[in-house]
Amino acid sequence: MIDLFVIKVGGNVIDNPVLLQSFLKKFADVKGKKILIHGGGKIATRIGDKLGIESKYVDGRRITDAETIDVVTMVYGGLVNKQLVAKLQANGCNAIGLTGADANIIPAYKRPVKEVDFGFAGDIRVEDVQAAPLKALLDAGLTPVFASLTHDGQGQILNTNADTIASSLAIALSKYYSVRLIYCFEKKGVLHDASNDDAVINLIDRVIYKELREDNVLTDGILPKLENAFAAIESGVAEVLIGHADDVQSNTTDTVAGTLIR
Amino acid sequence: MIDLFVIKVGGNVIDNPVLLQSFLKKFADVKGKKILIHGGGKIATRIGDKLGIESKYVDGRRITDAETIDVVTMVYGGLVNKQLVAKLQANGCNAIGLTGADANIIPAYKRPVKEVDFGFAGDIRVEDVQAAPLKALLDAGLTPVFASLTHDGQGQILNTNADTIASSLAIALSKYYSVRLIYCFEKKGVLHDASNDDAVINLIDRVIYKELREDNVLTDGILPKLENAFAAIESGVAEVLIGHADDVQSNTTDTVAGTLIR
Repeated sequence: MIDLFVIKVGGNVIDNPVLLQSFLKKFADVKGKKILIHGGGKIATRIGDKLGIESKYVDGRRITDAETIDVVTMVYGGLVNKQLVAKLQANGCNAIGLTGADANIIPAYKRPVKEVDFGFAGDIRVEDVQAAPLKALLDAGLTPVFASLTHDGQGQILNTNADTIASSLAIALSKYYSVRLIYCFEKKGVLHDASNDDAVINLIDRVIYKELREDNVLTDGILPKLENAFAAIESGVAEVLIGHADDVQSNTTDTVAGTLIR
Repeated sequence: MIDLFVIKVGGNVIDNPVLLQSFLKKFADVKGKKILIHGGGKIATRIGDKLGIESKYVDGRRITDAETIDVVTMVYGGLVNKQLVAKLQANGCNAIGLTGADANIIPAYKRPVKEVDFGFAGDIRVEDVQAAPLKALLDAGLTPVFASLTHDGQGQILNTNADTIASSLAIALSKYYSVRLIYCFEKKGVLHDASNDDAVINLIDRVIYKELREDNVLTDGILPKLENAFAAIESGVAEVLIGHADDVQSNTTDTVAGTLIR
């Protein structure tokens, strides 16, 4: 019996006002305890551009220099996070906006420099996550909403991948709850056929996963997501679900519209 | 017996890195339950300028148009708030950064347009403040840190005077605690003699206040602060203190360095 939903909503949803509005309304109506984790979308890049700060990427990953960490702290931790909170409040959801620095919930460490210096990028050790204060907030009837930021415990905010924050929180909270970790994006789930958006695979377990890989059904982009999903399950998360932001309601019930992984 | 300190730190302290660093260390060491409220300083104006958004003021009060509310939400609610939280955490204080939208603690309403349209400026009815979730955070051992933002309950963030937030929280929490409300700024307190920074008046009550006014000792700038202080006391706050950010330690004891009002 699932008693906590840890829900990550992707940047493409944040960037789309119509989809976001509809998602927030549906998320607010999800029954039971829930946590939202949001990416930042393209707003940080847009504001960084206006401030004359160039966005730098290596292999699709943002390089977070000193100017960039200030921009993402402002935009993810301030603008996006507080607008989401205000809109959830308007929809009757008692949201509380947080970063990993708040209540020291997600201590992280600056990624060591190897071939690439990612700057103020924070990596998480799941065993460091402080689940107890988060449980206290949930027990007080609040819905925590996390921006994808952590801190190093020495006073520095760090930029951390939102998917990683979602899975780390889901794993850490599994000691208190039976958790379904839900990744919401702009597709309905893992597809049998990449050209058919409705060809959703409703259930994947290790056996089915092996068959799908042998049949070359899965696209490259979905493989790391599924690997992460199985890693979360091996670390205590009851179920992982990949689905459309618009299906968040049904994806918190037993009759899922997306892809359930367990 | 005071059992909660509600401490407001002014924008001039936020803008001064040396003073801020020293203040945060001392604030972190304050024993007992405490709440911090911060102004934004000049950083919002600086970032607004870079983004090509002109700051507008009428009678020293900021006009918060649609672009400006986004800037103050980013800068006060994101950059300043989360940097303060990360630095307090580094000093061993379990801070949690909030706005009035979070947990719906400070519902507000958009200031009605009369002679001046202040835009997205939020006024507070003290009876609307939700003290219970704030008490739950304090009881969980957390130190709430508030940016000077509220919300209208319809999804809109509003810009609200930090002094007003501080007094509203202090009044609302007086039903649970014996509160000392402390205003920290860059002077030692209310002065006998404006030209002598050390001429601090250590205690002001209604009788002394009347005498000081009759003797024309008080400068114009301090009068509204004192009126607000007495208003807070009449609404249940045990004591109000006006003092230097550097004296926050002694100002949370019985031997105050600043001006105690009761």
